[in-house]
Amino acid sequence: MPGEQSGWLRGLTGDQEIAARFSDQAQFESFARFESALIAGLANAGLIDVGAASDLEYRILKFKPDEKRIAAAAVIDGVPVPEYVRQLRRTLSGPGSELVHHGATSQDLTDTATVEALRKVVDIASARLDLLIADLDALEERDGRRPLKAITRMQEALHIQASARIRIWSDSLKALSERAPSLRLETGKLQFGGAVGDLQALGENAETVAVTIADKLGLDWPGNGWHTTRRPFLACAGWLTELSAALGKIGQDVAMMALRGSVDIAFSGGGSSSAMPNKQNPVAAERLVALARFNASLMGAMHQAQIHEMERSGAAMTLEWMVLPQICETTGCGLLACRELIGSVTRMGRET
Amino acid sequence: MPGEQSGWLRGLTGDQEIAARFSDQAQFESFARFESALIAGLANAGLIDVGAASDLEYRILKFKPDEKRIAAAAVIDGVPVPEYVRQLRRTLSGPGSELVHHGATSQDLTDTATVEALRKVVDIASARLDLLIADLDALEERDGRRPLKAITRMQEALHIQASARIRIWSDSLKALSERAPSLRLETGKLQFGGAVGDLQALGENAETVAVTIADKLGLDWPGNGWHTTRRPFLACAGWLTELSAALGKIGQDVAMMALRGSVDIAFSGGGSSSAMPNKQNPVAAERLVALARFNASLMGAMHQAQIHEMERSGAAMTLEWMVLPQICETTGCGLLACRELIGSVTRMGRET
Amino acid sequence: MPGEQSGWLRGLTGDQEIAARFSDQAQFESFARFESALIAGLANAGLIDVGAASDLEYRILKFKPDEKRIAAAAVIDGVPVPEYVRQLRRTLSGPGSELVHHGATSQDLTDTATVEALRKVVDIASARLDLLIADLDALEERDGRRPLKAITRMQEALHIQASARIRIWSDSLKALSERAPSLRLETGKLQFGGAVGDLQALGENAETVAVTIADKLGLDWPGNGWHTTRRPFLACAGWLTELSAALGKIGQDVAMMALRGSVDIAFSGGGSSSAMPNKQNPVAAERLVALARFNASLMGAMHQAQIHEMERSGAAMTLEWMVLPQICETTGCGLLACRELIGSVTRMGRET
Amino acid sequence: MPGEQSGWLRGLTGDQEIAARFSDQAQFESFARFESALIAGLANAGLIDVGAASDLEYRILKFKPDEKRIAAAAVIDGVPVPEYVRQLRRTLSGPGSELVHHGATSQDLTDTATVEALRKVVDIASARLDLLIADLDALEERDGRRPLKAITRMQEALHIQASARIRIWSDSLKALSERAPSLRLETGKLQFGGAVGDLQALGENAETVAVTIADKLGLDWPGNGWHTTRRPFLACAGWLTELSAALGKIGQDVAMMALRGSVDIAFSGGGSSSAMPNKQNPVAAERLVALARFNASLMGAMHQAQIHEMERSGAAMTLEWMVLPQICETTGCGLLACRELIGSVTRMGRET
Repeated sequence: MPGEQSGWLRGLTGDQEIAARFSDQAQFESFARFESALIAGLANAGLIDVGAASDLEYRILKFKPDEKRIAAAAVIDGVPVPEYVRQLRRTLSGPGSELVHHGATSQDLTDTATVEALRKVVDIASARLDLLIADLDALEERDGRRPLKAITRMQEALHIQASARIRIWSDSLKALSERAPSLRLETGKLQFGGAVGDLQALGENAETVAVTIADKLGLDWPGNGWHTTRRPFLACAGWLTELSAALGKIGQDVAMMALRGSVDIAFSGGGSSSAMPNKQNPVAAERLVALARFNASLMGAMHQAQIHEMERSGAAMTLEWMVLPQICETTGCGLLACRELIGSVTRMGRET
Repeated sequence: MPGEQSGWLRGLTGDQEIAARFSDQAQFESFARFESALIAGLANAGLIDVGAASDLEYRILKFKPDEKRIAAAAVIDGVPVPEYVRQLRRTLSGPGSELVHHGATSQDLTDTATVEALRKVVDIASARLDLLIADLDALEERDGRRPLKAITRMQEALHIQASARIRIWSDSLKALSERAPSLRLETGKLQFGGAVGDLQALGENAETVAVTIADKLGLDWPGNGWHTTRRPFLACAGWLTELSAALGKIGQDVAMMALRGSVDIAFSGGGSSSAMPNKQNPVAAERLVALARFNASLMGAMHQAQIHEMERSGAAMTLEWMVLPQICETTGCGLLACRELIGSVTRMGRET
Repeated sequence: MPGEQSGWLRGLTGDQEIAARFSDQAQFESFARFESALIAGLANAGLIDVGAASDLEYRILKFKPDEKRIAAAAVIDGVPVPEYVRQLRRTLSGPGSELVHHGATSQDLTDTATVEALRKVVDIASARLDLLIADLDALEERDGRRPLKAITRMQEALHIQASARIRIWSDSLKALSERAPSLRLETGKLQFGGAVGDLQALGENAETVAVTIADKLGLDWPGNGWHTTRRPFLACAGWLTELSAALGKIGQDVAMMALRGSVDIAFSGGGSSSAMPNKQNPVAAERLVALARFNASLMGAMHQAQIHEMERSGAAMTLEWMVLPQICETTGCGLLACRELIGSVTRMGRET
Repeated sequence: MPGEQSGWLRGLTGDQEIAARFSDQAQFESFARFESALIAGLANAGLIDVGAASDLEYRILKFKPDEKRIAAAAVIDGVPVPEYVRQLRRTLSGPGSELVHHGATSQDLTDTATVEALRKVVDIASARLDLLIADLDALEERDGRRPLKAITRMQEALHIQASARIRIWSDSLKALSERAPSLRLETGKLQFGGAVGDLQALGENAETVAVTIADKLGLDWPGNGWHTTRRPFLACAGWLTELSAALGKIGQDVAMMALRGSVDIAFSGGGSSSAMPNKQNPVAAERLVALARFNASLMGAMHQAQIHEMERSGAAMTLEWMVLPQICETTGCGLLACRELIGSVTRMGRET
């Protein structure tokens, strides 16, 4: 994802809580958890003395890398891990220290850090989703019996109750919420394949080491690396994009109700206009549509990134790095914007 | 999907067997199944005499519509159903005939016809997928122990065996094959919502009628219509797009092995060049990449179509109609092309 | 572009006149023009006797290929040209016949055929565009002084006249119309590069031959082949996609006016509903939105196809073949749909 | 564009110089230039005393807004301008101060600020482009006569010289460079339409005011606002996306030459591997491919944003804000990455 963004736009389309999951600090802490768990795995496999290992694990978890130098080196290396490992190795000594990163590769660390970030994002999104669903249930409780004109193909159709439209919104969100636990499992996979994906450097110890790392990180070990088959990332991006589309549909509907006016909906707050101070623009509703269309396009890029050539594609990985955090942030932002929007609705359906 | 296409290109990118699932004839047969099942449902609800109903069902299933007139009317109506129903009604008479289409809407028929087509497409794709997996298992059996240079980030890395690369291909296809049964269930949902999605015209009989239609069509009744929440279509499109990307990865890998030359792979057949008759181009491999990138872009359009405004969006429906059959065909075409490709490999991995 | 499509959908989203520009017959006629012009060029370069050449040109232009066998061979060769040339050569004999296709490559024929098709498409689109602009001018003449509520950010803003909204539509179309002549020049480039793009087989005769072919076909010779730099195609696809977006904006506006109801707009005709016969759906307006969003996604695929590796990418070419004709057809269809739509408007702006 | 991004990734995919053109500070300075030019225009129209106006212009240009409060208000208003104007007004007093922002609307300021940013981006990109072209000319001068195997459809074809491949790269870049001046003109359009796009608040003074603003800002006044027809932005995004694709083609070609090995190309530097220290990965080449595919997807989103409903679409504007700065940055980053890459090539073509 490109650099500095406009501060005011960040508030409209970004999400600080989710952005923090992809910060250098968060990623390098994931790297440390991986490298220390790897040491534990090498100890379980009998390649490092257990006492030396626990001391190394402690020091790895305490390690504070020089982020600026890593950023500089990443431009050359295409990935932050080589410089991270160089720095880490310099801080370690004694028995076992020569085995730091043994059997692993850069992608094992970056992918596993992404897995940890995505799992947190799913948790954040799920929690917000449940609050939003509660908001919609409350809206239905309050206004559900109010009459509305159904709109099909941009034309007034039969009478419905507000509850019918609200329930279409909340049902789609509930279905997404119900998928969150299985998505969490599908995403929570340890990446561990080594230089060319087959853990050959660890020979018969591979399974022991992998299972230990997975246990330490609370991840599932799928039995092999998945450097080039990215289902855990794609499934997560797909769920988030579907979620932002469900929010976009709410935004589109609310914007159209706002267009139809007070016969359909009334708000408190709303955006002010520099030219027409009397207006109350359904700004959050429009944002939801923009966020959904943005993610739909990024999801196309995620599918492009699935064509991951040979044993490792730097091009495909870099494309994922540019796209995934943005899908996470825009979806998270949409959840907050949708709660604002629903909270600002003072009446949905006709006055009776 | 736009009109006439170049015949020679159809052979490269289309799939006649799958295209037939979306033909007018196939769709109108689905319409007839729906309308006859609806009559049965109205009879179960006591709205039509059972004897009269079974006679109507028989005549509806026998009905042969005037496809040309439907096509002409569809341009005006935006959907083929109104003219289909007008024609059908003219052929029917007697008790119950006035209740043809009662409680249903155009989208109920078009969506259910799409569900029936997609379910067949999943069956066709799954069968081809299993054959392709068998081809890859045979390739691994034959050449799996041959040495290969792993390629990471476009550079030679460590030695692997051909089996390592082949298994990455087959494992991703096996994972997709394992998801087919649940996808089949997720896609196989009756669409039935009536004019504005709430089946209001059927009142307390709605459930009885819906369950009858679902039973007759061998579909699942989700308990309500889903005119504006398109998960069954999106899930199917997503699986197909992932499948075509998995095929695209195989194509990309084979094309790159062909670029590296006989040290990696040897073929029989292959494309001829009008300028260099000696060349053997890995044409099927390149097609797989093109088909995958095409579907990745169409999948972005599918996500755009999820922003389905109010109770029915003609814009979103039309966009789905343009995209879904193409995703099905290109994926089906890719499965056939990949089998050709693997079948043409006479050696994978170094000669020993 | 995939195969058979639903007949009724073809009427909604396809364009027979434009589709015909990409038919096998149209392409093979372009091939014949190219091959005969090439013979003339070889004669101008002194490689063939002039009399023999004019006889060969005549026979090449008369040649009727076996389309079925070409389609079958294209699946193997990845392109229809090798079999076309094989068939052509079998029909020719005598002096110079051994030089048929001399110095050319498959892509020279397919790209030049696409150039010829695109140039015709631009002519068709421009003619329709001018008719549509005239329709909008007439609408402005008739209803331009009627009052309308401007709508900004989905809210009623100040009063405007209908002319203000109509002129935004027509001005964007006029700007596109004014770009058509320069686009026609930018698109009308002979493709001629030979086996690897540098015309090496023709040596010092290359320029003479190229200029002759360009003159015979009424195309511009850019001085070199452009096998891998696709600006002529991308510029044309971009103009068409912008045009379909301008039509989509009209469709979106009209659909929203229809949503606001008779205060804004009144229609004759319009789509019927199978469930609510009283409704008049702005079907053509919704189609315009769907066509525009479809093209926007395909345009993303066109940009993906620009990453055209080495001296010729079968993957990138195939992706273009799948995308370009569809962009042409959907834009052409949109132009016809927009004229229908504007023609159906009986009043735009408030009754006074 | 979403929020905080990973610092190390920013170095790989971002561009600080270009990002600064879209910073809050840069945009608010553009706002000040617009508002002060507007005062000058109102003075030219005789609505403000000239002396009072020049004093107001001076104070507006000196005005330092509270960026944090603008960011907070933008989330409510959907745009930063209303709070900017509120703050600005509070700092001004005296004759004419009541006319600050008179006749203008938020979009006039945000679009014009984007125009100013894009024009700077085109200048930055053009300057880098010319340096890159010089690098490629030097590479051709040094290595152009070295033999290479042409690669068509992933197969070795005839012999070429390195100059043939290099010239394809530089010719496409030179064509883009030649389009820069006309693009600069096409992009450099004043946005000025007022509340609903027709400058109605200024009546007969509109032209005088608009021309003054355009002169002060060194922009072209197209004769009317273009709130809903976004050609200046789309043309610029298209040129940048084509440029990043031309860079992506270079990256793809270099990556494939690196795959083929020292027979084709040799590098100094290159990325290190955490697992295989001996490798030299063509990291910049892969980045160019990723940046190009990313922009191709974003360009699809730009086309989606062209469907700009009624007199102002907050959804379409917001989508453009998310997409445009990223297209600018990734293209700028690609230009720097491509210069690094070409600079690291120590030999292209076979050793002789």
